[in-house]
Amino acid sequence: MATIKDIANQLGVSVSTVSKGLNGASDISESLRQSVLDTAVELGYTTKQMRGKDRRKLCIFVENMDYENPEEFGYEIILGFRQSASRENYDVTVTPVTPLFQSMEKYDTYMLKNGYVGAFMIGYALQDDWMTQFNTTNIPTILLDNYIKKNPAVGYIGTDSFEGIDDAIVHLMSLGHRRIALINGSRNSMISEQRRQAYIDSMTAHDLPFSEATMPYGYYVADAAKDHVSTLLSMGITAILCCNDLMASGVLTECRLRGRRVPEDVSVIGFDDLPISSKLTPPLTTIRQNRLELGMCGFYALNSLINHVPISRTLLRPQLIVRKSTANAADIPL
Amino acid sequence: MATIKDIANQLGVSVSTVSKGLNGASDISESLRQSVLDTAVELGYTTKQMRGKDRRKLCIFVENMDYENPEEFGYEIILGFRQSASRENYDVTVTPVTPLFQSMEKYDTYMLKNGYVGAFMIGYALQDDWMTQFNTTNIPTILLDNYIKKNPAVGYIGTDSFEGIDDAIVHLMSLGHRRIALINGSRNSMISEQRRQAYIDSMTAHDLPFSEATMPYGYYVADAAKDHVSTLLSMGITAILCCNDLMASGVLTECRLRGRRVPEDVSVIGFDDLPISSKLTPPLTTIRQNRLELGMCGFYALNSLINHVPISRTLLRPQLIVRKSTANAADIPL
Repeated sequence: MATIKDIANQLGVSVSTVSKGLNGASDISESLRQSVLDTAVELGYTTKQMRGKDRRKLCIFVENMDYENPEEFGYEIILGFRQSASRENYDVTVTPVTPLFQSMEKYDTYMLKNGYVGAFMIGYALQDDWMTQFNTTNIPTILLDNYIKKNPAVGYIGTDSFEGIDDAIVHLMSLGHRRIALINGSRNSMISEQRRQAYIDSMTAHDLPFSEATMPYGYYVADAAKDHVSTLLSMGITAILCCNDLMASGVLTECRLRGRRVPEDVSVIGFDDLPISSKLTPPLTTIRQNRLELGMCGFYALNSLINHVPISRTLLRPQLIVRKSTANAADIPL
Repeated sequence: MATIKDIANQLGVSVSTVSKGLNGASDISESLRQSVLDTAVELGYTTKQMRGKDRRKLCIFVENMDYENPEEFGYEIILGFRQSASRENYDVTVTPVTPLFQSMEKYDTYMLKNGYVGAFMIGYALQDDWMTQFNTTNIPTILLDNYIKKNPAVGYIGTDSFEGIDDAIVHLMSLGHRRIALINGSRNSMISEQRRQAYIDSMTAHDLPFSEATMPYGYYVADAAKDHVSTLLSMGITAILCCNDLMASGVLTECRLRGRRVPEDVSVIGFDDLPISSKLTPPLTTIRQNRLELGMCGFYALNSLINHVPISRTLLRPQLIVRKSTANAADIPL
């Protein structure tokens, strides 16, 4: 477990300052106190007060998502959620789940027997057992990137796919691109269908050509590039928009293998802005999802449900981060 | 100005309890303290601490909406906003505005010269001068029922029209109705277009007949019933869904004048659940918008923007309140 000294080192302050922050002393600033508490949460340090028995318990269930290291998609989501929850005196448990686990445990029963008053679900797929149970649960539940109709106990948070994808397409158009492909995520996921629709809407609005063949599914794996890049390039595609940074890194590799230069011959855009994206060659232009904010929003939406304010959905704005993987469309004959 | 005694009377507690609540004494419960503070805000009582000079200032701008009495649509929205803002140490000013005012004052300039750090806009119409300025403002701004694309400084909150209207139509279908009309609000408003689309989507999904003639605009005024009720009834409509309770009350009156009984001959549904709706004859079935929660949500979304969390939209769930104005479809020949 982390010590007070670990927190002090991380923040570059003295042990006594950390101690004051943890004990709510009045002679340090509110913003410094908050930094001490946030860092304590990040490092896993807990005080007796933070572990007090009257604190309410929340659970984050994680499926299909890596979250244990700062490089991974779920890490900051969970951190943002836990930091916000800690300020409001909640304890948070993170529980990885599998389809098998869900088929053996009813959601409501599991929550009840563990004393959880609410949950945040990240990485769920439409076919998951619990997804059906969310239609009727009375337990305050927030889903990342999944929407349950008409159950006021359940809310949805996410990033606005429509704005993100349109931002990327407008950026590519400004560089002269017209033949733009989308390598989507997994089939059978709400967010993939939403992004597919966003691509169709934006291409239609800007009068750009597209077809089923220009929007394949890549299942979020880097190797998907092997299946799709040569086909897309042979169709005259000059820009490839990928639904995560990992697939975009696969596209960069695949282009290199085929002797196609990025961005001179092909422009590539990722999604998420994971730490890896600025370190790729070339550094990746990408649609940023602010994961710390997603986690904070997840908590605030859940806290609203717990307080009987039936938030149906909360969306955050994405942000296009322009780096070096996009450039003027090559003057290649189409 | 309200006194401590007014607060005590309203809550049915002693003056010393109110005093403890206002001064943050430790020997009253947190929930009672919160009630004292909420009531103080509602009655307009302020302490020196609440007026302190380091408190940040927010403004609620109101247009096209009544809000001064508890019966009116805007009253609880503003109350919910002010109560939540007060807990986070903000001062709130309510400023009614007109199109003329907007044409004479630039939004950013007005905010700056008054020292407001953020604003909540309620009742704005698409053609308002300031609506264009919201596309480019950097000042944290939340709009009720209006959406600005791609500006991360501006967010939208509202009630989910799609669920509300589908709930109402499903309820009417369960009573045997198939010919259902929508009397919409004003043209040239985002929310009217959203509700029109919600009606079209729901009628289409349930395979019910509709046309341009079954979805007229009533501009939120009771008298609109005079224009539309006889036409709709002559078309064989058996249920009329109105986009506010005032138009629904007009429909009740108009049906009575024409010798048509509600709900035996015609079912009527309102929107909002204003206090008036339970007192009509018959008491009105209506799609409830929880206005206190809308106000609270408005504040929390604004506070997120102020803290650089770019919330794009937050929607609340509506709730169908079934009273006596809906019943089985009459066996009238169509």
